[in-house]
Amino acid sequence: MNGAIKTIHGVNCHCGWDNSIAPVATVAPGETLRFECKDAGDGHFHANSTAADIASMDPARVNPVTGPIFVDGAEPGDCLKVTLGEFEPSGFGWTAVIPEFGLLADQYRQPRLHLWTYDRSAEKPAAFGAHARVPLKPFAGTMGVALAEPGTHSVIPPRHVGGNLDIRDLSSGTELYLPVEVPGALFSVGDTHAAQGDGEICGTAIESAMNVSLTFDVIKGAAPPAPRFVTSGPVSRHLDQAGYEVTTGVGPDLMAAARDAVSTMIDLIATQQKMAPEDAYMLCSVCGDLRISEIVDAPNWVVSFYFPRIVFE
Amino acid sequence: MNGAIKTIHGVNCHCGWDNSIAPVATVAPGETLRFECKDAGDGHFHANSTAADIASMDPARVNPVTGPIFVDGAEPGDCLKVTLGEFEPSGFGWTAVIPEFGLLADQYRQPRLHLWTYDRSAEKPAAFGAHARVPLKPFAGTMGVALAEPGTHSVIPPRHVGGNLDIRDLSSGTELYLPVEVPGALFSVGDTHAAQGDGEICGTAIESAMNVSLTFDVIKGAAPPAPRFVTSGPVSRHLDQAGYEVTTGVGPDLMAAARDAVSTMIDLIATQQKMAPEDAYMLCSVCGDLRISEIVDAPNWVVSFYFPRIVFE
Repeated sequence: MNGAIKTIHGVNCHCGWDNSIAPVATVAPGETLRFECKDAGDGHFHANSTAADIASMDPARVNPVTGPIFVDGAEPGDCLKVTLGEFEPSGFGWTAVIPEFGLLADQYRQPRLHLWTYDRSAEKPAAFGAHARVPLKPFAGTMGVALAEPGTHSVIPPRHVGGNLDIRDLSSGTELYLPVEVPGALFSVGDTHAAQGDGEICGTAIESAMNVSLTFDVIKGAAPPAPRFVTSGPVSRHLDQAGYEVTTGVGPDLMAAARDAVSTMIDLIATQQKMAPEDAYMLCSVCGDLRISEIVDAPNWVVSFYFPRIVFE
Repeated sequence: MNGAIKTIHGVNCHCGWDNSIAPVATVAPGETLRFECKDAGDGHFHANSTAADIASMDPARVNPVTGPIFVDGAEPGDCLKVTLGEFEPSGFGWTAVIPEFGLLADQYRQPRLHLWTYDRSAEKPAAFGAHARVPLKPFAGTMGVALAEPGTHSVIPPRHVGGNLDIRDLSSGTELYLPVEVPGALFSVGDTHAAQGDGEICGTAIESAMNVSLTFDVIKGAAPPAPRFVTSGPVSRHLDQAGYEVTTGVGPDLMAAARDAVSTMIDLIATQQKMAPEDAYMLCSVCGDLRISEIVDAPNWVVSFYFPRIVFE
């Protein structure tokens, strides 16, 4: 980390988007800030935590984001460009099945918690049980700006101004473009993850506090209709070397097809690896990818769930 | 190709799944067959074809599949394992915007046709206009078995027994697992593509006749609920070297989010590359990928559309 870069400490956080929250710092275009990001549980879980501790999470403190930051010159209708720099992961993380949350909440009703310790350089995969090793790629699950609409808006759902996007390629080197709705943009970041698959299917990734350095720029009058980004390559090499196990869901509803594909994969992995289905569910969330393979052959679409075989090699 | 392998010629084709169609050949488990696959237009397009020829496509001859093949010992409840071997692409292909078909059929109502000539080894990318070069990965868009239910079932929609899956990784080296519903399975294959992105968003890929060698095995009593497969790695290296441009759709409906993400990408590419939107639509279909980035942060999901930057480098 660069000692010359200003750090926004994690104490400067909030748990809802609200354009009346006073900015904690101002940056000029081209400037870089380092953000301390709490994990999505606001530090609730520690090395000795168990599934019983899930019930005592404070809903009002879930998914805290660090900020907001006022970006000089950013006006409604502009585009805020955020370039993601260095991540400094903490080395501790958690994944949970939280009752009434997640793609298969109707099937997995009991709380379950997995704690991770992992290599802070993120170069080595993280072990899960005796057999699985999950490649890491730290990223920020939540990056967004304040909405023009007054009031407090939940930090949980993502929106057209960003927020809890949970896109696993919002990692070091990526450029994110967000539409600005209020003067100064009022940007915040949090919900850092050491690894996650496309979909974040159980509702949690490898949730992990970390610091991240971000550089801000303003592109006048170029607000995109929704977040977009540019990743540098290569993107998938930490995952695709040994190929994938893939299950599918086929039918007229993309959500049902996604659920079918994931359910079948959990059954497959639980059987092949002699693993509890609840563990397979969490493992799929941190490394398996939901893809829409076909969306035109009416009336049936194909959603595929890709599980990287390198995890078991 | 191996002269000792029996070839099923393309004349042995059909355009609907029907368990009363007599098999054209019988194979023993472990045996390999070579299939001549027509393109999805049944050879309608040639080097001099234009968009005006789209209107004269015969709907009854769309998406012909070669077969069916009776697999000795395959019984209802079994799993048919199909191992994909060598592809022999023709070197000629087409991509079309077909009125009333495709993810953005409401926006793109005029027929449009692009003809491709490409390297038959599929080692070199295929040129699209002056600037774009699309990496190739030949695969079979349609592989499936007969349904237990009598009658003729359209070949267009994919089903739980496979069919028009259009999964771009059903390529050489992949093992596909299908549920068997009738004695002998009655397997057919067709709709070969030289390249396609996840989603096949305009409704067509690089549609191209080719031969493919397939090896059949039967796993007793192991019918999966829907098609699944195993790909060998690496999977994405022909695409991800230069990273991706990514657009998103954010909202409570996955289909609407997919449409939003694709529409924004078409606008972006058409602007950046000074390309007609209709061409950008076709280009996105042959190399851009729809992914479900987040499906748990109710009420809004994130669908992302990944366009590989190597296409323009």
